[in-house]
Amino acid sequence: MAGGYAGKLLKLDLTARKVTTEPINEKAAQKYIGGKGYAVYLLHQYLREYEKQGISVKDMDALDSRNVLIFVTGPGTGVPRFPSPSRYHVMTLKAPLTGSIGSGNSGGEWGAFLKFAGFDGIVVEGASDTPVYLAVVDGKAEIRDARELWGMNTMDTTRALMSAVKGKNTSVTCIGPAGENLVPMAVVMNDEYRAAGRAGLGAVMGSKKLKAIVVSGDKNVPVARPDEFRKVSDRCLDTMAKNAVTGEGLPTYGTAVLVNVINEAGAFPYKNWQSGVNPDANRISGETLTEKYLVRNRACWGCTIGCGRISTVKSGPFQIVTAEGPEYETIWSLGSACGINNFDAIVKAHHLGNELGLEPISVGSTIAAAMELNEKGYIPEEDLQGLVLEFGNAAAMVEAMWRTAYKVGFGKQLALGSRKLCELYGHPELSMSVKGLEMPAYDPRGIKGIGLEYATANRGGCHVTGYTISPEIVGIPEKIDPLTIEGKAQWVKTFQDFTSTVNSTVNCLFTTFALGAKDYADLLSNVIGWDISEDEIMKIGERIYNLERFIMGKLGFSDKDDTLPPRLLKEPMPEGAAKGQVVELDKMKEEYYKLRGWVKGMPTAEKLKELEVEV
Amino acid sequence: MAGGYAGKLLKLDLTARKVTTEPINEKAAQKYIGGKGYAVYLLHQYLREYEKQGISVKDMDALDSRNVLIFVTGPGTGVPRFPSPSRYHVMTLKAPLTGSIGSGNSGGEWGAFLKFAGFDGIVVEGASDTPVYLAVVDGKAEIRDARELWGMNTMDTTRALMSAVKGKNTSVTCIGPAGENLVPMAVVMNDEYRAAGRAGLGAVMGSKKLKAIVVSGDKNVPVARPDEFRKVSDRCLDTMAKNAVTGEGLPTYGTAVLVNVINEAGAFPYKNWQSGVNPDANRISGETLTEKYLVRNRACWGCTIGCGRISTVKSGPFQIVTAEGPEYETIWSLGSACGINNFDAIVKAHHLGNELGLEPISVGSTIAAAMELNEKGYIPEEDLQGLVLEFGNAAAMVEAMWRTAYKVGFGKQLALGSRKLCELYGHPELSMSVKGLEMPAYDPRGIKGIGLEYATANRGGCHVTGYTISPEIVGIPEKIDPLTIEGKAQWVKTFQDFTSTVNSTVNCLFTTFALGAKDYADLLSNVIGWDISEDEIMKIGERIYNLERFIMGKLGFSDKDDTLPPRLLKEPMPEGAAKGQVVELDKMKEEYYKLRGWVKGMPTAEKLKELEVEV
Repeated sequence: MAGGYAGKLLKLDLTARKVTTEPINEKAAQKYIGGKGYAVYLLHQYLREYEKQGISVKDMDALDSRNVLIFVTGPGTGVPRFPSPSRYHVMTLKAPLTGSIGSGNSGGEWGAFLKFAGFDGIVVEGASDTPVYLAVVDGKAEIRDARELWGMNTMDTTRALMSAVKGKNTSVTCIGPAGENLVPMAVVMNDEYRAAGRAGLGAVMGSKKLKAIVVSGDKNVPVARPDEFRKVSDRCLDTMAKNAVTGEGLPTYGTAVLVNVINEAGAFPYKNWQSGVNPDANRISGETLTEKYLVRNRACWGCTIGCGRISTVKSGPFQIVTAEGPEYETIWSLGSACGINNFDAIVKAHHLGNELGLEPISVGSTIAAAMELNEKGYIPEEDLQGLVLEFGNAAAMVEAMWRTAYKVGFGKQLALGSRKLCELYGHPELSMSVKGLEMPAYDPRGIKGIGLEYATANRGGCHVTGYTISPEIVGIPEKIDPLTIEGKAQWVKTFQDFTSTVNSTVNCLFTTFALGAKDYADLLSNVIGWDISEDEIMKIGERIYNLERFIMGKLGFSDKDDTLPPRLLKEPMPEGAAKGQVVELDKMKEEYYKLRGWVKGMPTAEKLKELEVEV
Repeated sequence: MAGGYAGKLLKLDLTARKVTTEPINEKAAQKYIGGKGYAVYLLHQYLREYEKQGISVKDMDALDSRNVLIFVTGPGTGVPRFPSPSRYHVMTLKAPLTGSIGSGNSGGEWGAFLKFAGFDGIVVEGASDTPVYLAVVDGKAEIRDARELWGMNTMDTTRALMSAVKGKNTSVTCIGPAGENLVPMAVVMNDEYRAAGRAGLGAVMGSKKLKAIVVSGDKNVPVARPDEFRKVSDRCLDTMAKNAVTGEGLPTYGTAVLVNVINEAGAFPYKNWQSGVNPDANRISGETLTEKYLVRNRACWGCTIGCGRISTVKSGPFQIVTAEGPEYETIWSLGSACGINNFDAIVKAHHLGNELGLEPISVGSTIAAAMELNEKGYIPEEDLQGLVLEFGNAAAMVEAMWRTAYKVGFGKQLALGSRKLCELYGHPELSMSVKGLEMPAYDPRGIKGIGLEYATANRGGCHVTGYTISPEIVGIPEKIDPLTIEGKAQWVKTFQDFTSTVNSTVNCLFTTFALGAKDYADLLSNVIGWDISEDEIMKIGERIYNLERFIMGKLGFSDKDDTLPPRLLKEPMPEGAAKGQVVELDKMKEEYYKLRGWVKGMPTAEKLKELEVEV
């Protein structure tokens, strides 16, 4: 196998309680690299196999034991001095919250340490009857009883398995109670504080009764051309160090650096997106975090950025000794989206999310939707059981975290996610989601390109498969007008393709503030030992994105699902820098489909052939 | 069968999924009446049967499927105009928290409605593999699937089954998440707000996977001599209406009427019993409850006292629209015991306890013990996972309710109960419990008689099997000095015996503030149609208490377990009305054993014979 790969995957059949290994398919790796790309390739293989067997994946429940869950690294993962090289990707054929393809990505240590344990990835099939965990230690894998771990939060699970496996480079990925309870907003958590998996990847893990995967080992990840790699790596890390975002903004303020910036752009959603201006955003800004809550920074394995925060709340009802984060998205979803500017409560709720294994964007947005439903009188009082869901009620929001993770009291309804919650109470238009996935913290009425990204992202309302905030707000690689729709289709396509490759190498998206396709081509070529051009970097990404979209078609999605909530299309922004704006989605979408060579939102046979995608 | 009895029990074999009926044994009823007495009789039958089979109940786990759980009413239950006639008793051979006999009693509606459904009681044997509930409707019983109910709180469970069974007089008793999670401080909750079962009867129910019992029906409970009964009943209800406690104190202030009274006596335990004086008790008094939190009173079925409260917290971090209570014991355990005088937080935590099915005396006391352990530096910081367990931290206490019910984070340790928690951290002396059961809200250094009651109560640290507070503080039937030990042994014995009968009729103990043995003799005689004398009322109670104690011996208990925590025996009360006092337990205990005719804390063969107890 080429450099950068361990060369093999673990295949875990939980129904049969069997672990086998299979080699990385080199031909597939050349076309899809690793990480997300290789996982999409594998998911497509499963889809084909199911079609052959006459099984309709479209009608299959996401929690069906036949659903498959894939943990995968890339050739950059675990390579010292590869830019931000700790990450792994998680995918599933069908996500519980959306019914779409499920996809998530996480840093910390686990991805790198899986490589050190001797594997590029783990494919999980079937389901166990009783809780189990997988131990992958020094090239060997074993399914073990996890009945004692079931019910534990992510911290205790992690610590228990760190103690059980005392080897070098030990790391744990697991689910918390939310995943066990099959909450469709449950995440996969690694290293206590890092999460993968919007749309309920944690619930898929829970449905398989797979509590955790602990990895440990000290195998080196091979680098094909070490001297050349060192030179390219030095160049890239130097570029990152000198970049305003990766060298200064993120290290100094964490991701929360964006709060004031996006609020000033009039695109920081407030009270379930009723406005894009939070009048008190400074109370929950990155500056405030640094000044009043920060204990120290925290970096993922091998990362030179170090955007992670360790925080504390010193007193009061939301006191907590040590918490991680909060991140920009959490500050928004558990804060501004709910009309809450109580930073103490946000830190506390963020920590509870980590502990219980809840995905904060979707949970916070669902609480926000419930607040609007309730304030408008759509929720019968008896359903709330005394919970006062009103915008600005910080304590109710924190309590809602508990309730959602355990589906208890009104938590049963909250745990549906915003789409089904709003449908239940007769107002689906109040769910600020796309394809059932709640949108992140950028109002596209004020940043148009991201609206097209939300609408067309395969997994649903997502910002990280095509982060046009980079040019539209940050000015990288160049500053463009956030309020125009001109040229946005091309930006979205370019970012979606490039990001698909970055998620397949697999390293942190934040590197793309500083590095471009040329850098990735040089890095990959020298790690793997294949000559990959800048153009190929983009083409590989496009290939991945198209195959993923092809699978989406098989799951029943079409162009009609590439849309936005009516609030963004019809209600003009009431105030701020984007006052009066709506999202002119149809025009952008038409142009985007044309650029993609898609018809009715789906790749044509010609397009797939051009991209060498065999379906 | 005589009046007052439905005449039959349901017998539920959950392992075999079978329901049968068996007649009330009239001879046993004459000796043990019903309620607790009849349950003790039944438990003794099980014990004998197990002994025959060579099964050691002493070594059996309380959550073993062979443990038996009994719900039972008495001849007074469900009889209109019987004083406070709604109640039922729950017993188990072995309680999870203590290993002692388990016993609890509850009002509301369920007890009366079980009679209306046609049965005196329900005996639950075995355990189901999957969650079930029992429906008892109009004389028929059916085991039904409860998988949809599993995970629900007590409110949702109750409402779901009230909807499923729409008959007359429908009522639900059930467990919440705490019972499902086998927390040894889980209760059985009926009618959303009424609880039975200290020492983990809810966990026994959970171990059997029995989520709930819904009852419904409109059968009359027969009264043997209706005209005579009416006269006696009128007299008793009139006495109760004119009594200062049952006619005024309890209706006006609820059980919280005691807060200021007991604090002034220097016996209101504060900060895990480090003192008997709470300097700020007035903030959490019955007067404050009535003035600032009370929405309305609430009475159990047929009760003329109406001590229940419906409360609200209007704003702030512990806001809650509608809650029940809080009761005196809760106000103390979740408040004063933890050094907390934030009434908002107490109301909130009390409601969470009801919802999740937690027993507040033991949980609050366990949190208080953890606070003392932590303040003294005995708990490693990493175990607490950021939870700031310090006296007075109201938010941490509320959070601890969530954690305990779900055994999550430090809740795993809290859910052990105070004895095992304090043992775990090397300081068993800080558990303020007897036989593993946390003591209620009266410091016996200031009220000596209750100390003997705590030490000798069969189920462990308990105030309701011999409530000497009545003479020692309230002055009923006469005022005696709380600080002397003179004569206390006799008072304790008398109260324990009398209470055993009252718990077998079964009606509310609060009636005993106004009614005496003569009243009970007259009430019972006319309901049942047997002539029961005042002396027999006391003898029946003594018989029950002795048989219960005999069973305790079989479970491995002896005189050495009839003790108090060292703090009460050795640390003089530091301040207040009882300053300098300790409990002179040995002297009282010696006298008590003598009065009881017990040797080494156990009834002799002669004593049992005298009481016509066949063992």
